[in-house]
Amino acid sequence: MVVTRGDVERAAARIGAHVRRTPVLQDTPELALKMEFMQHGGSFKARGAFNRMLAAGDLPEAGVIAASGGNHGVGVAYAARVLGVRAEIFVPEICAPVKVEGLRALGARVTQTGAIFAEAYEASAKRAAETGALEIHAYEHPDVVAGQGTAGLELLEQTGGVDTVLVAVGGGGFVAGVAAALDGAATVVAVEPALSPTLHDALANGGPVRVQVGGVAADALGASLVGKAAFDTVVAAGVRSVLVAEDAIVEARRHLWRTYRVATEHSGATAMAALTSGVYVPEPGERVAVFVCGANTDPSTLV
Amino acid sequence: MVVTRGDVERAAARIGAHVRRTPVLQDTPELALKMEFMQHGGSFKARGAFNRMLAAGDLPEAGVIAASGGNHGVGVAYAARVLGVRAEIFVPEICAPVKVEGLRALGARVTQTGAIFAEAYEASAKRAAETGALEIHAYEHPDVVAGQGTAGLELLEQTGGVDTVLVAVGGGGFVAGVAAALDGAATVVAVEPALSPTLHDALANGGPVRVQVGGVAADALGASLVGKAAFDTVVAAGVRSVLVAEDAIVEARRHLWRTYRVATEHSGATAMAALTSGVYVPEPGERVAVFVCGANTDPSTLV
Ligand SMILES: Cc1ncc(COP(=O)(O)O)c(C=O)c1O
Ligand SMILES: Cc1ncc(COP(=O)(O)O)c(C=O)c1O
Repeated sequence: MVVTRGDVERAAARIGAHVRRTPVLQDTPELALKMEFMQHGGSFKARGAFNRMLAAGDLPEAGVIAASGGNHGVGVAYAARVLGVRAEIFVPEICAPVKVEGLRALGARVTQTGAIFAEAYEASAKRAAETGALEIHAYEHPDVVAGQGTAGLELLEQTGGVDTVLVAVGGGGFVAGVAAALDGAATVVAVEPALSPTLHDALANGGPVRVQVGGVAADALGASLVGKAAFDTVVAAGVRSVLVAEDAIVEARRHLWRTYRVATEHSGATAMAALTSGVYVPEPGERVAVFVCGANTDPSTLV
Repeated sequence: MVVTRGDVERAAARIGAHVRRTPVLQDTPELALKMEFMQHGGSFKARGAFNRMLAAGDLPEAGVIAASGGNHGVGVAYAARVLGVRAEIFVPEICAPVKVEGLRALGARVTQTGAIFAEAYEASAKRAAETGALEIHAYEHPDVVAGQGTAGLELLEQTGGVDTVLVAVGGGGFVAGVAAALDGAATVVAVEPALSPTLHDALANGGPVRVQVGGVAADALGASLVGKAAFDTVVAAGVRSVLVAEDAIVEARRHLWRTYRVATEHSGATAMAALTSGVYVPEPGERVAVFVCGANTDPSTLV
């Protein structure tokens, strides 16, 4: 199943009143940074969460339930609070403490279980079957993919067009949504940690394949299996895939702070890492946009 | 001497190639945040520094010299590096260590002396007389005021107009430049720490008057005497003046981090403090813009 630009446009109409149009810094004519970490909840995840809930219509008495490395949970909990429904969130042990605190502050019921996202997900699916809450998968459902893509529509409007867009990838919902939004208007480059090569291995394999995940950005990008609709959309769009090393991510995060006074989590700096480490080298004059997409971090770890 | 909108427009033409057009987050229809901390050097100060240097024409062999609580020095050092001239910066003992490091990283010669800005200034003026370097005062010179004002021109273009603009004040260069740029298009509210009421007391007195300065934002806002051109411009523009308490500044800084994942120094959150503490209460529907203007901070102090 391929998510289309039309799906993303419908998502934008649905969620427009609830999400922030995050600003773009046009640093040079060739480099635009979309400051998506300024979204409600500190990452783009509120976009997909709102779209899924609003598209679902009446929500069950038990509310919504999600498994998440952390950010998706925050997005779901935020949207649930705004829409006045209960949220139950399952996070793995690697979930950053600031994210757990953020979830609780939003009034979500939080269960921390399992080593990685995939294990927290198993627990959440079991619980959903008991309670009847609406499951909001972090990247599998087409409505979540289309919701994330609304950030791509904004980018196009705000920049007046770019040649290349760099996007960090976990389960692939964000990159697929952005690729659908761009609909060929720019080349999309999917950036993953070499230690969590979920999309990269799926592309090499010709379909979703379970991978080992780890590294500094694992709580956000550590999805073991790429989403099916996300994968189909990424393939249809001809998305390119690159991998970045751990130290490149750490250095890109420091670079964002030093150069722009922008404090992100590691996943939020992963797309930038492709540029700063030279894994992706633009042609002269090529207009590149980078999603700076998450900042649920303890800022004291920046220095 | 009153700085005019024409002065600011000429400044914008002069410095346009060297400064960032910092992005605006339109959070709600009524609230815009201009993310001026993303400017080169982490505050708006590069604007005035570039304008002063470029307007001065050929720069002396000895380069430029400035006294600064820190941010102005960083702006001058950045501009000097770009323009290929030497920079010597005098900072007081209260200058934040991250600012001193930032100055050194930009290749400036740094002297730390005196308890507050005014004392560092005395030392720098003496040294300037010896070396023949061009003095770049932090807020006194009309070209510095006009340069800072370019941020106000951008704000007008980016928002399509607002009713009220909140600006933090030290020596008054920034607020005067912004007021000149707006030229009556919006009400300008000058926000100062109650512990550094430099403009507030000058307005009450009918002219610049020396005040005691202190508090959490003193390294940026602790100017003992408002600039003359800045004062005249502020009076001509009918700028309003409000004071905020120390805890309001601290809380506004936390609010910016919690709500937008924006990490600022205390001065950078001082304008916001007028809103979050209720010192400035907009009318229903009033469109307010806030300058988030500095982030030369140790982010570990945020949490
Ligand atoms: C900050 C951030 N960036 C990127 C991603 C990857 O998104 P996706 O799982 O849709 O590929 C995530 C997912 O949690 C994230 O939190
Ligand atoms: C971040 C920040 N905001 C505001 C100001 C005040 O500017 P001015 O001295 O021109 O009033 C300063 C001055 O250092 C500053 O660094």
